[in-house]
Parts: sequence; structure tokens; C-alpha cells
Amino acid sequence: MPDAKLLEAFPSPSDTPFVIEHIAEEFTSVCPKTGHPDFGVVTVRFQPRPAKAGGICVELKSLKLYLHSFRSEGIFYEAVTNAIRDDLAKLMQPMWLVIKTDWKGRGGIRSTIRATSGDVPAIWMA
Amino acid sequence: MPDAKLLEAFPSPSDTPFVIEHIAEEFTSVCPKTGHPDFGVVTVRFQPRPAKAGGICVELKSLKLYLHSFRSEGIFYEAVTNAIRDDLAKLMQPMWLVIKTDWKGRGGIRSTIRATSGDVPAIWMA
Amino acid sequence: MPDAKLLEAFPSPSDTPFVIEHIAEEFTSVCPKTGHPDFGVVTVRFQPRPAKAGGICVELKSLKLYLHSFRSEGIFYEAVTNAIRDDLAKLMQPMWLVIKTDWKGRGGIRSTIRATSGDVPAIWMA
Amino acid sequence: MPDAKLLEAFPSPSDTPFVIEHIAEEFTSVCPKTGHPDFGVVTVRFQPRPAKAGGICVELKSLKLYLHSFRSEGIFYEAVTNAIRDDLAKLMQPMWLVIKTDWKGRGGIRSTIRATSGDVPAIWMA
Amino acid sequence: MPDAKLLEAFPSPSDTPFVIEHIAEEFTSVCPKTGHPDFGVVTVRFQPRPAKAGGICVELKSLKLYLHSFRSEGIFYEAVTNAIRDDLAKLMQPMWLVIKTDWKGRGGIRSTIRATSGDVPAIWMA
Amino acid sequence: MPDAKLLEAFPSPSDTPFVIEHIAEEFTSVCPKTGHPDFGVVTVRFQPRPAKAGGICVELKSLKLYLHSFRSEGIFYEAVTNAIRDDLAKLMQPMWLVIKTDWKGRGGIRSTIRATSGDVPAIWMA
Amino acid sequence: MPDAKLLEAFPSPSDTPFVIEHIAEEFTSVCPKTGHPDFGVVTVRFQPRPAKAGGICVELKSLKLYLHSFRSEGIFYEAVTNAIRDDLAKLMQPMWLVIKTDWKGRGGIRSTIRATSGDVPAIWMA
Amino acid sequence: MPDAKLLEAFPSPSDTPFVIEHIAEEFTSVCPKTGHPDFGVVTVRFQPRPAKAGGICVELKSLKLYLHSFRSEGIFYEAVTNAIRDDLAKLMQPMWLVIKTDWKGRGGIRSTIRATSGDVPAIWMA
Amino acid sequence: MPDAKLLEAFPSPSDTPFVIEHIAEEFTSVCPKTGHPDFGVVTVRFQPRPAKAGGICVELKSLKLYLHSFRSEGIFYEAVTNAIRDDLAKLMQPMWLVIKTDWKGRGGIRSTIRATSGDVPAIWMA
Amino acid sequence: MPDAKLLEAFPSPSDTPFVIEHIAEEFTSVCPKTGHPDFGVVTVRFQPRPAKAGGICVELKSLKLYLHSFRSEGIFYEAVTNAIRDDLAKLMQPMWLVIKTDWKGRGGIRSTIRATSGDVPAIWMA
Repeated sequence: MPDAKLLEAFPSPSDTPFVIEHIAEEFTSVCPKTGHPDFGVVTVRFQPRPAKAGGICVELKSLKLYLHSFRSEGIFYEAVTNAIRDDLAKLMQPMWLVIKTDWKGRGGIRSTIRATSGDVPAIWMA
Repeated sequence: MPDAKLLEAFPSPSDTPFVIEHIAEEFTSVCPKTGHPDFGVVTVRFQPRPAKAGGICVELKSLKLYLHSFRSEGIFYEAVTNAIRDDLAKLMQPMWLVIKTDWKGRGGIRSTIRATSGDVPAIWMA
Repeated sequence: MPDAKLLEAFPSPSDTPFVIEHIAEEFTSVCPKTGHPDFGVVTVRFQPRPAKAGGICVELKSLKLYLHSFRSEGIFYEAVTNAIRDDLAKLMQPMWLVIKTDWKGRGGIRSTIRATSGDVPAIWMA
Repeated sequence: MPDAKLLEAFPSPSDTPFVIEHIAEEFTSVCPKTGHPDFGVVTVRFQPRPAKAGGICVELKSLKLYLHSFRSEGIFYEAVTNAIRDDLAKLMQPMWLVIKTDWKGRGGIRSTIRATSGDVPAIWMA
Repeated sequence: MPDAKLLEAFPSPSDTPFVIEHIAEEFTSVCPKTGHPDFGVVTVRFQPRPAKAGGICVELKSLKLYLHSFRSEGIFYEAVTNAIRDDLAKLMQPMWLVIKTDWKGRGGIRSTIRATSGDVPAIWMA
Repeated sequence: MPDAKLLEAFPSPSDTPFVIEHIAEEFTSVCPKTGHPDFGVVTVRFQPRPAKAGGICVELKSLKLYLHSFRSEGIFYEAVTNAIRDDLAKLMQPMWLVIKTDWKGRGGIRSTIRATSGDVPAIWMA
Repeated sequence: MPDAKLLEAFPSPSDTPFVIEHIAEEFTSVCPKTGHPDFGVVTVRFQPRPAKAGGICVELKSLKLYLHSFRSEGIFYEAVTNAIRDDLAKLMQPMWLVIKTDWKGRGGIRSTIRATSGDVPAIWMA
Repeated sequence: MPDAKLLEAFPSPSDTPFVIEHIAEEFTSVCPKTGHPDFGVVTVRFQPRPAKAGGICVELKSLKLYLHSFRSEGIFYEAVTNAIRDDLAKLMQPMWLVIKTDWKGRGGIRSTIRATSGDVPAIWMA
Repeated sequence: MPDAKLLEAFPSPSDTPFVIEHIAEEFTSVCPKTGHPDFGVVTVRFQPRPAKAGGICVELKSLKLYLHSFRSEGIFYEAVTNAIRDDLAKLMQPMWLVIKTDWKGRGGIRSTIRATSGDVPAIWMA
Repeated sequence: MPDAKLLEAFPSPSDTPFVIEHIAEEFTSVCPKTGHPDFGVVTVRFQPRPAKAGGICVELKSLKLYLHSFRSEGIFYEAVTNAIRDDLAKLMQPMWLVIKTDWKGRGGIRSTIRATSGDVPAIWMA
């Protein structure tokens, strides 16, 4: 069962804006309709608030365990994506957050869902 | 025969803007001029209206059956693309919709058609 | 309906052994169980008998029309592969014939079937 | 000899803006200096005027024959590119037109020429 | 729990030798040591006995369900590979069987295990 | 018109066996049936006779001009391949010669023709 | 131990704006938590101040030795990235500086960190 | 010795803006410090002034010979890039000019230098 | 310092021949001549003796720690390769063992070393 | 001027057979006919004689300098390949030696030359 309490954080190490991206290539959950497993790639991309504003970053190992907690969950693509966005936005209150999920094909159709919070920072364009 | 009535939808799960992309790699229809089969890839990309505004999303399996309904249809590349754009725009009245069709080569020329509805959302740039 | 009578041939142009390979990347038939379309790539590889022994080669356009004749046929992967092998072996009585079908994934599993007639010629190793 | 009279067109099927791209991967002409053949890829990308404004689209087969008409022509890279741009702009009077030619290397240098007419439409950014 | 009783088969459709390969790209089990999930690709390749000798082929959907039955199993790479080889060899008694498992990296090391039954047939070399 | 008299040669520089391969990626001829151009890649691979046995090698620039001489010729795939094999075998009387032609797709089918003369040398396996 | 004193510089050779990018594909440091080695790629991209304004560029060999000085250091991804940004910004006081670190996967998750100083110059868009 | 006098030009064939790109994949010079050869790829991209404004384009073969003139020159990456930019800007006085040099790795670090003259034209975005 | 005592093993799980391959993509040691770090990929491939003959397999995590023990060692490519072959052959006394090391380029030259023990098993050809 | 005296060697570190491969991706010489530079990749692959039989291996840095000595030499592809084979065979008297040169295209044709000494060892097949 997805469990946001698994998520831990550490203080952002800088006041200068920077961007972190974690790509988890081995995500799996269960289709609530058919009971068959779904497989996908989850990308988490964010700019933490500055250190002096109390900015924090999600800790990598806790993120892994949090993503594993979806393994037996019956949940749709769109719900997975919005749930991760909401849980991480609540945890970190970052300047910017993007969750992108890329799902392996089903019946010849593959899908990508993209949910965000906050505005794209200039640093991302560089 | 292409049949928009095959399309079903479910309520958008979020008020926060997000974008969905489905890529159907196994599309086929028939050239109305030569009777030979055409093969292509159909990309459907959209931002649903917010949940509180009655936003809806096309259901994946119904989309697959709808695309299969072109299998025996004699229809040109441009007409396929505009028809899918029109049917999905009518169904979902989304904030943004892009239909892109990439066709395998004929006589050494391969083609791509791109039709849209609504403006590119900021979220797509992230 | 698959129709071997669509196949035509022309006399082999040489007494010296040579090998021809045709790769049809846009094959489609129908799953007899689910009624859903199957998509694959069909490879036809053969060494004709020598010209002086009455060797013949399948004509390219007739091969295309023959493969199109499977478009509405409900037929399993294995049966497609063996049918093409049998029809072409009967037509050409070649020194060597390989039919390989590569099928797009279904439920996360993609398949390849390989059927042959005759022995691999030394020329193929070069 | 390049012959713009080979080009045919059909009425644009929509009033909503859309973009068409044709990629001809097998273009050849002759270098006027050395007499040696040149090989390249020609990309034609355009947004037709709306149907209600009398918009038209170049017909695919006629485009192929038009491109073949350069086969024995001694003509430089830049002239090929500008000639195709001029002929298609005159035929269709499109909202936007891009001709891009990518030439195989000569003496270790490969070249790309890009000529346009009209402004890049917003739809192309999607 | 891995369950060989999920496996079903159908009669081999031919007396002429042929080879079938199924590649399941979305396999997952659990590391018995750490409890963390393992992800890999399972390749099943075999030559059935001839139809007249009572040859049978594993049915594709039952193979999928059988592979899903490892999802919550704590089991090592080598044991997974040997278990699948043994279960399928027992089911089909094929002329030739290869099981290959390719595992995503752990700690910077990725692994491949390969188990077989019977001799490589000449047809595989073609 | 294909013209074997364009081919020139130079003495093999060594008595020790060695193998030369030339890959001409820009070959074009004309389909004798439709009059449309065909495009392909021609590979010439050979082991010359030893220098002391009067071995000779085809000269690179003359090979280029010889291949250009097919540009306006109406000729089938198989005939191109056998003609080049015969012309080069006659010129060099090499220990081993392979001609492979890879043709761009027509109607969704692409083809490869392979013709040889002499036996594969051990050196090729290294 | 990371040692900024290893860094050397030379005068920028031009008053006209230009951009330099160095990509070090063989960076390694040590995880301070587990003691296991981390491997990544470090990209350094900058626009020096104009020569007449005393602009300087980091010298390539000194950059290599500086990056090697992290080899036995226990340090987190984010700290590596910010340290390199700070050391190079202090050394060169460039118009623009980007440090990007791409880390090999750990536990199925790979990460990218991006830190900058100054605004993206127009020249970078070209 | 680099020799700008090797460069020749021809009149721009059009008043309508267009962009030319030449990519020389086989550039080599010598490191002035170590005497070892450097290898790189040089990209020259420019928009000539309109024909009616006396616009000219660098001639391809003369560009090749000019680039060869660096072969025995001891010169740094940054100096090569700025020299080519200056020589071509002086020759053509183009609307826009970009020189990009991509250098093979040395000691595990590969580099790219980018120098420009003039503003990016709208046509380049298409 | 390379330390074979770090290596652990577990009993081979089968009497039927099978092959295991581990690919460690993040190997680093130090050049004894220059003191600069070397980076490479180490492949370990082996067929254990049958279980009933006391066959054993190297344990994955211990292999990782063993490879890490070369991190500060000044040692040549050839010596690394032969040392790993000798240590693993001594540990497992396998039927077959291949060690392959692929080294990143130095001065424009990249290298591969391959050392073996025992004969290639038939199973490897499948 | 190619200079075999630049080559140095060190004693083979093992009595057990092993194979070494060096790939020099930045080779250049001069065409004796046109004076234009040629660029290629040189692969050196060999099995040294056993240590106890006085086996030696070419030293990597000396190999680099030796290959650089062809930089200003006017010499044909075939002669380069045979010269390197002869010089290294004389130096090392190895069990097996392969020299392979892959040349960038000239006039649309790219070439590969392969010269050997001794028989392919069983170890190479593994």
C-alpha cells in the first residue's frame, strides 16, 4: 500500500538554485481492472527551496522504498502519477516539481503521464 | 468503419493541470486510391479540463477499439488525422489536444501529419 | 483469406548459387481467440535452384499481395509461419527456405517463430 | 530536368491549422562541376492555408515524380533547395513552408541547407 | 508462489522442425536475502517435438500467468532460471529448450543466467 | 549502361592472404518494370590471389565509376547483383568474392541479394 | 581530498563571447553513508568573461587532476555538484557556469544534479 | 599553417533568407603543449547576406583545403575555433555564423567549443 | 589491495549444465606508470561444475567487494585480467571461465583483454 | 615516416593463452595519389606466445607513437594494413595477429582491409 510516511528528507545543501532528477526504472503496480501487473519508469525532478528558507530534499533510499510500496497496489496510471506528485509536494514544498511516468505498452499502446507543481525554473533551460 | 461511439471516458482525477500521452504503434487503414494498406503510429496527447470543471479523459481500451475501427477504411493520411482530432476534441473538450500520425514510407517518402486543438500548456515545456 | 494462388514466380537468373531475402515489415493478421489484430515482420529467405535445373524465384509484388491476403484472417502465429513456409516451398521447391516471423508484444511478451525447409547453404555463412 | 508542372495539389481538408511533413530519403541529382552524382534527403514541411481560404496541399505521388525530375540535372545543393522552396511556395501559397536538404558527405564534409517561406506556426511547437 | 499448474499447452502444428521464442520483458521476483524486488527479462526458446510424435507447445497466455506467479516469491537468479527450465521441460518434453534470464544491475553488476535442455538444432543456425 | 571496361586493377601488394571490403552506400539504378529509380547499398568483398600468383585488386575510383554506370539502366535487383559478381570475378579471378546488395523498401518490403564466387577463407572468421 | 588549489587557468583568447564545455566521463567518489564507490559523468560548461575584462578559462589538465582529487572522498551527489560549481565560479568568475553530474544507478534509481551560476547566454541557443 | 587565403566564395543564390551548415568530420591539428595530434569535428553554420546585398557563401572544396591547412599546426582548441570564426566572418560578412568544434577525449575528458558572430535568425528555429 | 579472500561462494543449484555471466560496469584501478586512474568493464562468465561434483558459484556481493579491492592498486590491464581469472579459477574450479576486461580509451586507443580457463561448453552456443 | 623502431614490448605476463585487442580510433595518413588526408580506425588483435616461450606484448604508448608516424606518409590503404601486420609480427612473433583498418568514405565508398598472421585461437571463440 503506497505509504508517504516512508519518505524522508535532508536539508537542501545550497542557497543557490539547483535541480535534482531521480529516474526509477523499475516501478511496478497492479491494474485495478484486470489484476495484471503494470510496469513503468518514474521520473522525479525538482528544485528545492533555498537552504536558508528551510528547503529540503527527498532522501534517495527512502524514495526507493516509497516507490516499492506501490508494488501490490491496484491503481491507475493517472492516480499513481498524481499521488506521487501530491506526496512529494507535501513533503518538500519545493520551488518546482515534475513527476513523469512512462508505462510499457498494453494492447499496442504505451502511455506517458506528466504532473507538475510550481513553475519551470530558468536553471532548467541551461 | 471509424466509429466515435466506441470511445469512452472517465472523470479527470485532478484539478491540478497534467498531461496524458498515448502512443499507438500499430495503426493501419487502407489507401482509398490504391486499396493497399497503410501503416502508421498514432500519438494522442492532451491536457484534460480540471476535475471540478467536469474534465474527462478518454479510456485506454476504448481508444484501442476506436483506432481498430479504421482497419478496413479507405481514408487518406490527412483525413485520418483530422478525424481523430475532431472525435476526441468532441468527446473530451480538453484544454489542449495534439494528434500526430507518422506513416511508414510509400515510394521512398514517409510522412507525418500533426493536428491540434487549444494552446500548448506551460506544463508541456517542463 | 490467405491465397497461395496470388503468388507468381520468374526463372532464376543464374546457375551460380545465390541467396535472396525479402523483409516485409508491415504484416498484420487477426488473433482467432480475441479477434484483436496482430502485427509482425515477415522475413523470407531462400536459395533458388540453379537456372539450368528450372529454378524459380517468387515475384516481389505478388509476394506483397499474398501477404496482404492474411489481413482479415483469424490465425495463430505458428500457423502463419508454417503456412507461408509451405506455400513458398511448394511454389519454388528451393534449395533452402527460411520463414521468420517477429511479432509485436502482447501482454508484455513478444515472440519469434522460425520455420525452414532444406539445409543452410555455405554461401549464407559468407 | 526539374519540372514544376509535374506537381499536383488537392484541397486542404480542414480549416483548423495543421502541419504536413514529407521526407524523401532517396533524392539524387548531379554535381554541375564534377558530373558525379549527389545523394541527399529532402524534407518538405508546410502548413496549408485553411480550406475556406482556398488552401491546397501538394499531392504525394506528384511530389515524388517532381523530385525524380532532378535525377539527371547538374545543379548545386543551394540551388536545389531554393528551387524546391520556390516551386512549392508558388503552387500552394502556404502559411508556412520549410525545405531542408541533407547531403551525404563529399571529401569528408556533409552539408545541410534550409530554406523557408512564412513564419513558424505555434502548432509546430507542440 | 511459482505454480507450474498454471501452464497450458496446445498440439504442435507441424511435423517439420521449427523453433519458437517468447521474450517476457517484464519479469519481477523478490531477493530472498534483502527482500528488495528483482527485475529481469525472461527468454524461452524451444523446438517442439513433431506433431506426429505428440509434440506440444506452451500456450502464450498461460506462460504469462505462470511468470506472474513469481512476483511475490523470494528466490535467487539461478533458482528462477533452473525452475522455469525444469517446469517447461516437464510440460513439453521438447527437442530443445533454452531459458535465458537477464537481470537489471544491482550494485553496478548486471547478470545473465542461461540453462538448457537438449541439443541445439541445425535450424537455429539458419 | 553498365560498362565493365571502366574497371581497372592494381597488383596485389602481398603474398600473405588478406581481405578487402568496399561498401558503396549510394547506388542507384532503374526498375525495368515501372521506370522508377531503385536505391541500394553495394558491398564488394574479396580475397585477391597472392602477389606471386599474379593477384590483382580492383582500383577504388574505377569501381566508383563502374557502379555509376548503372544509374540509367533498367535492371532487376538479382541481375544487378549477378552482373557485378560476374564482372569482378572476370577482372580479378580472386580467391573469394562476395557481392551483397541491400535495397531500400518498395511497397513495405526491403530486399537483400547475395552472390559469391569461391570459398570463404579462414581469414574472414578472425 | 577535493583540492581547488589544483585548478589552473589561462587568459580567455577572445573578446567575442564563446562557450566551452568539458565532459569528464570517468568521475568517481565514495558514498559517505555506505563507503561504496559512486561513478558519474561531470559536465562543466561556461562562458568566460571577455579577454579585455580579464576573463580566464580553466586549464584542461588541471581540471582533470582536480576531479581526480574526489576519488577517495566520502561525499554526497549534491555536495559534489555544488562544490565543483563553487570552486570553478571562484576561480574564473565566468559570465555563465553550469555543472551537471549524471550518476550511475543505485538500487534501480539513477540521478542527475544540475547547478548553475549566471544567466544562460544567447550564444548557447544557437 | 592555417591559411585563410585558401578560402573562396560564390554569390549567394537567393534574396530569401536561408541557412547552410557544413560538418567536417575529419579535422586534425596538433597540441602545442605535447606535440600529440588532436582530432575533432568542425561544424560551420551560417546565413549569408541576401544576394542583392552582395551576400556570398564559402565554396565547399576551398573550405576543405582551408581546414586541411591546420593539419601540422600546433594550436589549442579555443584558438582553432576562434580562428575559423574570424576567417569566415571576414570572408563572408554573414548575417549569422556559428563555429562549433567537438574534440575527441583526452585523459577521459572530451570538449566542445562554440563561437558565433551575429544573432540567431528566426529561420533556424523552424 | 586486491584480496581474493573477499570472495565467497555458494553450492551450484543444479546438475544440469548452465552458464552464469556477471558484468561489472564500474571497475577502476590505477596505472602503475602514470598514477592516473584507469576505468573499465569486467565480465565474468563461467559454467560451474555440477552440484553432485561439488560445484560452487561465486557470490554476487562478495564479487563486488573483491572488484572494489583493486580501486587503489597500481596494476596493468593484462595483470588485472589474469589476476581475476586466477583467483576465480582457484575459488570455483569451474568447467569453463572467461574474464574479459574492456578499458576506456587512453591517448585515443581503447583496449580489451580476454583470458580463459577450460573449454567453451556447447551450451554457450545456444 | 612509418618507423617500426618506435615499437617497444614487455614480457607476456602469463603462460595461459590470452588475447589482447587495441583499437586506435584516430589514425590518419595521406593518399599518395591525391595528397588528401585519409582517416581510419586501426584494430590490433593478438595472442602472445606463452611467457615461458619468451612471449612479448607490444607496449601501448609505443604503439601510439608508431601509428602517429604514418601521419605525413603518402601510402595506400592496403599498404598501411600490410605494413602494420608485418612490423608487429616481426616484433612479437605472436601465436596469432589480426590487423583491421576501417577507412572513412571517399566518393561514397568506405573500405575495410583485414590482414592476419597465424591461426585463430580457440579462446577467441569464447
